[in-house]
Amino acid sequence: MVKNLTARDSDYSKWYNDIVQQADLAENSGVRGCMVIKPYGYAIWEKMQSVLDKMFKQTGHQNAYFPIFIPKSYFSKEASHVDGFAKECAVVTHYRLKNAEDGSGVEVDPTARLEEELIVRPTSETIIWDTYRKWIQSYRDLPILCNQWANVVRWEMRTRLFLRTAEFLWQEGHTAHATEQEAIEETKQILDVYADFAENFMAMPVEKGTKTEAERFAGAIETYCIEALMQDGKALQVGTSHFLGQNFAKAFDVKFATKEGKKDFVWATSWGVSTRLMGALIMTHSDDNGLVLPPKLAPFQVVIVPIYKGEEHLKQISKKVEIVQKALQAKGITVKYDDRDTHKPGWKFAEYELKGVPIRLAIGQRDLENGTIEVARRDTLEKETYQLTDIENKVEHLLQQIQDNLYRKALTRKEEKTYKADSFEEFKSLIETGGFVWAHWDGTSETEEKIKQQTKATIRCIPIEKEAELGKCVLSGKASNQRVLFAKSY
Amino acid sequence: MVKNLTARDSDYSKWYNDIVQQADLAENSGVRGCMVIKPYGYAIWEKMQSVLDKMFKQTGHQNAYFPIFIPKSYFSKEASHVDGFAKECAVVTHYRLKNAEDGSGVEVDPTARLEEELIVRPTSETIIWDTYRKWIQSYRDLPILCNQWANVVRWEMRTRLFLRTAEFLWQEGHTAHATEQEAIEETKQILDVYADFAENFMAMPVEKGTKTEAERFAGAIETYCIEALMQDGKALQVGTSHFLGQNFAKAFDVKFATKEGKKDFVWATSWGVSTRLMGALIMTHSDDNGLVLPPKLAPFQVVIVPIYKGEEHLKQISKKVEIVQKALQAKGITVKYDDRDTHKPGWKFAEYELKGVPIRLAIGQRDLENGTIEVARRDTLEKETYQLTDIENKVEHLLQQIQDNLYRKALTRKEEKTYKADSFEEFKSLIETGGFVWAHWDGTSETEEKIKQQTKATIRCIPIEKEAELGKCVLSGKASNQRVLFAKSY
Repeated sequence: MVKNLTARDSDYSKWYNDIVQQADLAENSGVRGCMVIKPYGYAIWEKMQSVLDKMFKQTGHQNAYFPIFIPKSYFSKEASHVDGFAKECAVVTHYRLKNAEDGSGVEVDPTARLEEELIVRPTSETIIWDTYRKWIQSYRDLPILCNQWANVVRWEMRTRLFLRTAEFLWQEGHTAHATEQEAIEETKQILDVYADFAENFMAMPVEKGTKTEAERFAGAIETYCIEALMQDGKALQVGTSHFLGQNFAKAFDVKFATKEGKKDFVWATSWGVSTRLMGALIMTHSDDNGLVLPPKLAPFQVVIVPIYKGEEHLKQISKKVEIVQKALQAKGITVKYDDRDTHKPGWKFAEYELKGVPIRLAIGQRDLENGTIEVARRDTLEKETYQLTDIENKVEHLLQQIQDNLYRKALTRKEEKTYKADSFEEFKSLIETGGFVWAHWDGTSETEEKIKQQTKATIRCIPIEKEAELGKCVLSGKASNQRVLFAKSY
Repeated sequence: MVKNLTARDSDYSKWYNDIVQQADLAENSGVRGCMVIKPYGYAIWEKMQSVLDKMFKQTGHQNAYFPIFIPKSYFSKEASHVDGFAKECAVVTHYRLKNAEDGSGVEVDPTARLEEELIVRPTSETIIWDTYRKWIQSYRDLPILCNQWANVVRWEMRTRLFLRTAEFLWQEGHTAHATEQEAIEETKQILDVYADFAENFMAMPVEKGTKTEAERFAGAIETYCIEALMQDGKALQVGTSHFLGQNFAKAFDVKFATKEGKKDFVWATSWGVSTRLMGALIMTHSDDNGLVLPPKLAPFQVVIVPIYKGEEHLKQISKKVEIVQKALQAKGITVKYDDRDTHKPGWKFAEYELKGVPIRLAIGQRDLENGTIEVARRDTLEKETYQLTDIENKVEHLLQQIQDNLYRKALTRKEEKTYKADSFEEFKSLIETGGFVWAHWDGTSETEEKIKQQTKATIRCIPIEKEAELGKCVLSGKASNQRVLFAKSY
C-alpha cells in the first residue's frame, strides 16, 4: 500500500476524491454521473441502512416498494412539484431495441414508442399518492407510515461521488394522516430520528431547522432539515423532512371519511436521507492519512495484523489471535484477521489506516513472550502496548472512547467555525473564511437572493428552538426577530 | 373481514391473484407491468432477503452497487447476450422535460437527446464486467465475489404479480475467478445455497439440474437451476446460477496476470433469485382460505386476539397477554397483539387466516378462569386449548412442526405429481394432466422444440446427480442415457 493522498490544505476537493477512490468506497462508472459503490463503501452504507431501518420500525414505520417509473402526466398534477422535479430527469420513450440493419449492433426500434413517456423517479410522491388513493377510504385506514429503500435519478450536470450523482440510493418515507397536527408531529419526529442518527452514529453534529421558501421542497408547506459543517467550512444538507399539507392529496384526489362522517383530504409528509450521508461521513472525520470511521458504522471495528517470520511462527501467533478474536466477537465487536502472506505488515498498516479502521491490533514475537498486544487508534494515530488480560473490555472501552472523541472533535471544529455577523462587511468576510454564520435576515426572498448573488451564501436553515433576538437584517437593515444560519454549501 | 376468494379448483389463476391482492401482498400500479409491493408482502420479501444475504456472506460474498443504466453499446459486446437481453427493455433517450407551450403540462425537450441511449438494466453482466476490468490486474485480485440487491426491468408483454413483472426486485451475484474449476464450483455452491433456502426456509422442495442449450442464459456456458412444482401441476423456475466461462471477460477484455506470470482471461459466474420467489411461496402452500406462510418467513409468526366485553375486561386479558407475549418474544418468536376495538374477533380471525399467520392465539373469559389459551394452526386449521404453563416452549415446538409439515405436504404433492413416461402417448397425457414428467430425450434441440410445439412442455432441467439409465427418446426413439425433467411451466 503506497498512499498517494492529496492533503486537505492543498486541494480539499481532490483530497475528498482521493479518499473515496483509494479507500475503495466508490468510483465513476461508464455511465455519465452514475457511480459504482464498491464493497467496502457499500458495507458502510449497509450499516447506515440497518441502523436507520431499525429506527424507522421502532417509530412504527413499515417498508414497501413502489415502481421506478412515473408516467409523465403524474408530474403535472401538483403544480409546484412539476417545476421542482420533472425537469432534469431520465425519460424512457421506447421499450424495444432491434438489430441494426448494417450489423453494427443494436438500435432503438422506432415502432416501439411508448404512448406516454415514463420518468425514472427523481422522488416518489406522485406515484405513491396515486397508490394511496386506493388504500385510503376512512380514518380507520390512517395513518399510513411507509418507507422505501430505493434508487432515484436526477440528471445532475456536475456530479461528485456520493455528494451529487445522477443515480443515488436513498430511503424515502411517505406518510398519510388524518390531521394536520399529526402530520406535523411526524415530520418533526423524523427530523429528530435523523439528528439522533447523525450525532450518535455518524458522530456528526448537526443544526436542525426549517428551510426558507426558496429552498423548500417542491410541493411542501414546510421543509425541515439537518445541516452539517464540513472541514472546508461548507455546509452540507444531510437530511430533509417535509410537511406536505394536503397538496398531494388534492392533486391525486385522496379523501377519507372522518370519524364525524365528513370527507376531508389526507395530510402528508415525506422525508429522506441518501448515499450523500456517505459524503458527509467521509468529510466530517477523515484526515490527510485517509478515511476515519466512527466505530458504530465501521464494516469492521478492529483489524489484527500478525508480525511473523515463517509459517511456524505465524501458526503460534494465529493461535493467540484466535483467542483474542473470539473474546472480541463475543462482545459483539467485528474483527478482521489479516494473515495474508502476500503483503507485508507495513503495507497492511497503511491500508487499514487509509480505510479508517478504528483500531488496529498488531502482535509479534515480543508480544508472544510478554503476553501483550500493540493497540493503534485510527482517530489519534496513538499506539500503546496492552496486556492481553481482559483485552475485550479494554477494546470495547476504547471503541466507545473513539466514537465519543470523533463527535467531540467534530463538535469543536463546528463551534470554532460558527460565527455571528452583525454587519454586511463582517458577514461577507466570515462567509469568505468559511463556516456557519448566524445573522439577522428580514424574511424576504429578495434579500435572500441578493445575499446569495453577492456572497454565494444561502440560508441553510431557520432554527426551530433558538430563542428570539431582536436585530436588523444584515443586508437590508430591516427589523428581524431571529438570526438564521448562513453558509456556502455543497 | 369478508373473504371473497376464488377456489383453486374453479380458477387457479384467479385464486392466485385474489390471494396476492386480498392478503395485501402486492397490486398493479398506474404503470404498465410494474407492481406496488405492499407492506405485508414487502415484509416477507425482507425476511427472504435477510436469510439469503446471511447465506451469501457466510460463503464469502460482499454486496456492492452498480448503475441502473447500461449504455446501449455494452450489449453488443457479447454476441449471444445481446439477442437474449437487449430487446424488450426500457430505453432512456432524453434527459429533460420542459413546460408544454400550450400549458398542458410537461413534454420531452427534443434538444435534450442523449448521444447514446441508456438501457434500464435487465441484468448487469455487461456494466459489471466493464467495471471489473478496472479492478482486476493480477491473480491476487481474484476471486471477486460480489452480489447486489437491485431492481431490474424487462419489458414483459403479459405480466402477473410477482411471477412476471416489467420491474422486479432481485439479487444478482457476479463473481470473477482465476480458474475454470473454481468458477464451476462457485456456480454449484450457489445452486446449493438456493436449494437449501428453498427447502429449509420456504419449505418448498425443488429439483436441481442444468438447462438445455435452448433454455440457457444468454451468454452462459452452463445454466444451473432449481425448479419447483406448483399446485396446478406447472413448474416454476425459481433460481438460476450461470457458469459464464470467459465470455464476458473476452467481451470486456478482462485479463489477469497468473501466478506463473502469463496473461489469461478471467472466469465468470452470475446467479440470481427475484421477487418471483414470492409467487412460488404463495402457490406452494396457500389454500382456499388464503395465504399459508412457513413460520421461518412469516412477518409475524403468532397473532394474539383477545375476546372481551368492555374495557375493564380487555384490561384483564391484556395483562395476561403481556406475560405470554414477553415469554414468546424471549424465545425469538415474533408476535402481534391485535387489541383494536374497531374490529370483532371473528373479523380478525378471518383476516389472519387470509394473511397466513402460522399460529393464532385467542384468549377469553373462560381461558382467564382456567389458565388456558386457544391455539389455532393455519396449516391444518386445527384448534386446541393449551394450558398457559410453558406456553413459549409449546408454541416454539408447534412452529417447528408447522414448518416441517408444510415441507412434507409440498413434498408429498410433488411426489404424487411426478411421473415417468415411456411412450409419447403416455407423455402427452401426463403433461396434459399436469406435473413433472421424467422422460428420455435424444439430446437434440430439434426434438426439444417439437415436443414443446406438440405439448407445450419444456425441459425444465437435466438432473446433475441422477444415475444413468439407458432408454429411447420419447419422441424420436433415438438412444438416450438419462431421463430429463419435462413440464409445462410459468
